Amino acid sequence: MEQGIVIFAGICGAVGILYGILTAIWVVKQEKGTPRMQEIAAAIHEGAKAFLSREYRTVALVGAVIFVLIGIFLSWLAAFGFLLGATGSATAGYVGMMITVRGNLRTSQAAYTSLKNALKLAFRGGSVAGLLVVGLALLSIAIYYSVAKAIDPKQAFYALIGLGFGCSLMSVFARIAGGIYTKAADVGADLVGKVEAGIPEDDPRNPAVIADQVGDNVGDCAGMAADLYETYIVTLVAAMLLGKTVFGAESTWAFFPLLLGGISIIASIVGTFFVRLGAKQYIMGALYKGLAASGILAAVAFYFVSVWFIGKFLPDSKDALAFTPWTVLLTAGVGLVATGFMMIITEYFTSKGFGPVKMIAKASTTGHATNIIAGISVSMRSTMPPAFVVVGAILASYALGGGFAGKEDVGLFAIGLAAASMLSMTGIIVAIDSYGPVTDNAAGIAEMSQMDEKVRGTVLDPLDAVGNTTKAVTKGYAITSAGLCALVLFAEYAREFLAHGIELHFKLSNPLVLAGLFIGGLLPFYYGSRLMLAVGEAAGGVVEEVRRQFREIAGIMEGTAKPQYGQCVDIVTKGAIKAMIIPSLLPVASPILVGFILGKEALGAMLIGVIITGLFLAIQMTSGGGAWDNAKKFIEEGMYGGKKSDAHKAAVTGDTVGDPYKDTAGPAMNPMIKVVNIVALLIVPLLL
Amino acid sequence: MEQGIVIFAGICGAVGILYGILTAIWVVKQEKGTPRMQEIAAAIHEGAKAFLSREYRTVALVGAVIFVLIGIFLSWLAAFGFLLGATGSATAGYVGMMITVRGNLRTSQAAYTSLKNALKLAFRGGSVAGLLVVGLALLSIAIYYSVAKAIDPKQAFYALIGLGFGCSLMSVFARIAGGIYTKAADVGADLVGKVEAGIPEDDPRNPAVIADQVGDNVGDCAGMAADLYETYIVTLVAAMLLGKTVFGAESTWAFFPLLLGGISIIASIVGTFFVRLGAKQYIMGALYKGLAASGILAAVAFYFVSVWFIGKFLPDSKDALAFTPWTVLLTAGVGLVATGFMMIITEYFTSKGFGPVKMIAKASTTGHATNIIAGISVSMRSTMPPAFVVVGAILASYALGGGFAGKEDVGLFAIGLAAASMLSMTGIIVAIDSYGPVTDNAAGIAEMSQMDEKVRGTVLDPLDAVGNTTKAVTKGYAITSAGLCALVLFAEYAREFLAHGIELHFKLSNPLVLAGLFIGGLLPFYYGSRLMLAVGEAAGGVVEEVRRQFREIAGIMEGTAKPQYGQCVDIVTKGAIKAMIIPSLLPVASPILVGFILGKEALGAMLIGVIITGLFLAIQMTSGGGAWDNAKKFIEEGMYGGKKSDAHKAAVTGDTVGDPYKDTAGPAMNPMIKVVNIVALLIVPLLL
Repeated sequence: MEQGIVIFAGICGAVGILYGILTAIWVVKQEKGTPRMQEIAAAIHEGAKAFLSREYRTVALVGAVIFVLIGIFLSWLAAFGFLLGATGSATAGYVGMMITVRGNLRTSQAAYTSLKNALKLAFRGGSVAGLLVVGLALLSIAIYYSVAKAIDPKQAFYALIGLGFGCSLMSVFARIAGGIYTKAADVGADLVGKVEAGIPEDDPRNPAVIADQVGDNVGDCAGMAADLYETYIVTLVAAMLLGKTVFGAESTWAFFPLLLGGISIIASIVGTFFVRLGAKQYIMGALYKGLAASGILAAVAFYFVSVWFIGKFLPDSKDALAFTPWTVLLTAGVGLVATGFMMIITEYFTSKGFGPVKMIAKASTTGHATNIIAGISVSMRSTMPPAFVVVGAILASYALGGGFAGKEDVGLFAIGLAAASMLSMTGIIVAIDSYGPVTDNAAGIAEMSQMDEKVRGTVLDPLDAVGNTTKAVTKGYAITSAGLCALVLFAEYAREFLAHGIELHFKLSNPLVLAGLFIGGLLPFYYGSRLMLAVGEAAGGVVEEVRRQFREIAGIMEGTAKPQYGQCVDIVTKGAIKAMIIPSLLPVASPILVGFILGKEALGAMLIGVIITGLFLAIQMTSGGGAWDNAKKFIEEGMYGGKKSDAHKAAVTGDTVGDPYKDTAGPAMNPMIKVVNIVALLIVPLLL
Repeated sequence: MEQGIVIFAGICGAVGILYGILTAIWVVKQEKGTPRMQEIAAAIHEGAKAFLSREYRTVALVGAVIFVLIGIFLSWLAAFGFLLGATGSATAGYVGMMITVRGNLRTSQAAYTSLKNALKLAFRGGSVAGLLVVGLALLSIAIYYSVAKAIDPKQAFYALIGLGFGCSLMSVFARIAGGIYTKAADVGADLVGKVEAGIPEDDPRNPAVIADQVGDNVGDCAGMAADLYETYIVTLVAAMLLGKTVFGAESTWAFFPLLLGGISIIASIVGTFFVRLGAKQYIMGALYKGLAASGILAAVAFYFVSVWFIGKFLPDSKDALAFTPWTVLLTAGVGLVATGFMMIITEYFTSKGFGPVKMIAKASTTGHATNIIAGISVSMRSTMPPAFVVVGAILASYALGGGFAGKEDVGLFAIGLAAASMLSMTGIIVAIDSYGPVTDNAAGIAEMSQMDEKVRGTVLDPLDAVGNTTKAVTKGYAITSAGLCALVLFAEYAREFLAHGIELHFKLSNPLVLAGLFIGGLLPFYYGSRLMLAVGEAAGGVVEEVRRQFREIAGIMEGTAKPQYGQCVDIVTKGAIKAMIIPSLLPVASPILVGFILGKEALGAMLIGVIITGLFLAIQMTSGGGAWDNAKKFIEEGMYGGKKSDAHKAAVTGDTVGDPYKDTAGPAMNPMIKVVNIVALLIVPLLL
């Protein structure tokens, strides 16, 4: 029975990949624009490739060591799962990004025809990454589960934890290195370009301008893809494990999450066709239409699939009593509704139409310090609604599973289902997110190749502005889903021990548990602190290099000599790779140390500590950064004196502070929260 | 037996009060300086008095409602305890502050004679508040316990929880209102004075200058006194309650914390005599000598007292086996060592001699944004060592109590003892802290009355600079002790249910417990956000008023007309009082709501959630603010271009951001953490 579901999931994964490839071919076939445009796009392309290959080489070294350690101390099946997970994540990120860096050029060119065509190209460019992420992820779970089961049935599930850890490690590296890269280049380019030399953003005379464009791709596309690739796999795996430990190894419930995943890929593919402009030319609305269509289609399909599943697989067992098709639908609905809420909440805190951003803009009129104080206040406040969404989602799905009516176990599994349902939207979400760097680059290429002002103003700039919103909004989704995913992993951590007859008492009155909570709570603070600093240091390198080029290469400012773009790309690449290593290993080493020194209960408490402060800091940082960014844009539209006013200067300070907040430290919390949890799960056999 | 200890504690408390009164009389008798100086001091005195009386009237209204509610729903003994706690706290704050606002003037005058005399006056002025705090606190515990026991022996301990809640409520109001007042006045005065009008700090032409001076007293003296008054009482009460629930109602161990408190008052009084300048004129060293002397004396006395206590009271009971005099000494030592560590750690992160402050100063050279990024990074990193101190203190004392050897209960009591021992230093700590506003005001009065430049430069400015360090260092102590105190309260919360036969399972796998943790974790973020904003709003009122006076009153800038100081004082007072109400009620209402809606286990988890994020945010904010402040001072000493350089401007931005961080939101976390816990303890009878 389970075999049928696994094969179905594998086929859906393959369909996702196929759709991604076909879309990629379509994108590559589109018109490429003038030679000048192609030249710029090629430079971005080169830089992105150079960065990724360097990043992957470094990760390969670290990964090889970990692979051997897992093989020797834990299990070779898990070790090979680890390898597959890391490779799959890298492939999705690499291929997806190779298409966004081709889509950017073609989107610029399409802008000459119409807004509709440019939007179509930008979104399709992004959707390659989206569908590859979910397709590869689901296919690798299906294949590796089958392979592992054929080799050693007892280890089939444990092998999946190895798979999850592989993506985890890849995602923490990708998020950190991508995040440092993108902001070091951005801040560095702005500091010398805009502030010192007084030239506009994306000006081709700025030697750091290509590095800045590369950064958008490696941070927002490759980083986000790796992050969600991991959340997707890890959540499905954790929900499957919960299904196994709750209902027993023989129950088909363990494979139900795969069904949800498979259906959602199809729903997401159909959803991409709903992305089209209405009469009002409301771009964000077009993207939301695609998301809503995917969600509704998935929900309808969930219902019919549950009817079939419950009728066919569980007619005679007590498992059948766990859920009805309606409660399955409602539980999955909790995940979908949480996704919707997070979109609305993030938009409220980060877009120009609402109070928080307006308040920061107003505070800018009294100076730099009041801008920062207002921004910090908004960022702290923005944690409240998401916290209630997470709490609400947990309690609602637990209740739907009957957790409050004595069926605690089923309630836990229901939380896993809600998380899996939330994550099932990953394909379309990554598509919408990757749309951001495509349009951002398209606008940059247009600026650098001195494209027609009108086309830029009416087509590319509006597309780019929406890209900023989609980037912020999908970050909110990534964080909440990471939080839910980590909670499911934690639940599974406790269940694993129970399955071996050990009941863990995470009693808060036990000082070891308190110690674990404090150490866990501390990790995100320390980790965030390091990342904030790393951006500053890497940006400093860019500033010096740009200053050197302005000084030594005559004619740059007059436009008669070409800056050495490659030098800046190289400096940021090296800086980001160097800075990523220690912070990436922190969440891997901490659970091992705490587990062996303070014990398994302290480790469990540490997991919760990390989730709590990590979630709050991640939300604080990404929302705060987005709000600062848009407060600056609000003033640039003419409010409080517009550009060049004192208020604008203060707003630029806030925006610069917000950059590493929202694009480096904040998003890097997600993989960190999950890595800690999956490492803990991985070392359970050693703690037993 | 217990009666003897209670009487001893009462006598020690009375001795502390007597010493405070005698010192106050001595301070008041000292020379008062010129009429101009007296006039300024009188204005500060007036403003401070007006603020406190307005604050107390507001608290009285809120308190009256709560008093009646406690009486009706819980117990009238607890209600009267609440009244006594609030009154005692208010008295200590009021009287202590009335002496610091007299000590300031006399310190200015003493500066004419010698540094030694000025230091003596400033420290004695501060030590009135210190000794009154501990004296009144210990005396009120002793008296109210005896009274309550005479009326209803069963409720004697519960009445003490009411007493604790009274101080708690007072302290949350005092911290918030004082914190908003001090920073609104400071930021407001700086924004118009220094930045707009270009006049120096403490210039008598600035209409907000008196409000600024008043702020130092209401924030650092009255606010800190109320905060530590509460921590002191609540910790002793919680340790006594733990002693009762762990060893049984008849055990004398419940009264052992009172012995520690009593002895330490005497040790603190003796310690004050050790505050004297050495040959090297190292002022901070003189203060540390007093602290070290108090700590060592207390530790020695703890040992002999334990020998006597264990020999006399517990010869035949199994209680005697709980501790030996040596383990008592070591457990108390854990508290004293934690105090020492916190001093060193705070100094490392906030003083000019070390890396963190230097890094922020260096980052200021590249602008406002990099200063802020560096400061945020330092602030986040500064949470690490204190977290390990707290974890270490918990684990060490638990181990000393035999917690890891099967005696979990005694281990918990040992944590209470370590906390009580840490808090026993409160007297000398408040003395050192209150020294800060005295010297700050003394320097301000000297500036405003145009005192001899040389006396100011060689005596008052060095004294004032040390005051900044003592304020930062004692904040670190206040936070850590608040964290330990809250943990003891939490332990007692769980024990209370156990004493009624209900074992609470705070299992982290229970979604209600997770919900409690998240809601608890959220509170400090939301609370901090509101306080940051409140400072900005109140400061805005000051800015407008100062601008109005400059515009409407001719001759202010020429020094021919006097500004209306009282108007500014009035505006800040009203603003602070208005802004304090909702944030103060948040920690009172939240545990009640969570307790009744989500249940007692969710409430317990919420307590821990508040402690974790509250502790981290409090440390982050106070250390970060201190570091920003001193980075600015470092540049003012001539580094990176000195005053008026671009680096200095950036550093001023950081300092202004740090102001509400370190003096409003950060310190206000302490009472918040404790209030939530004590309210939970208070409503236990309703949750049973």
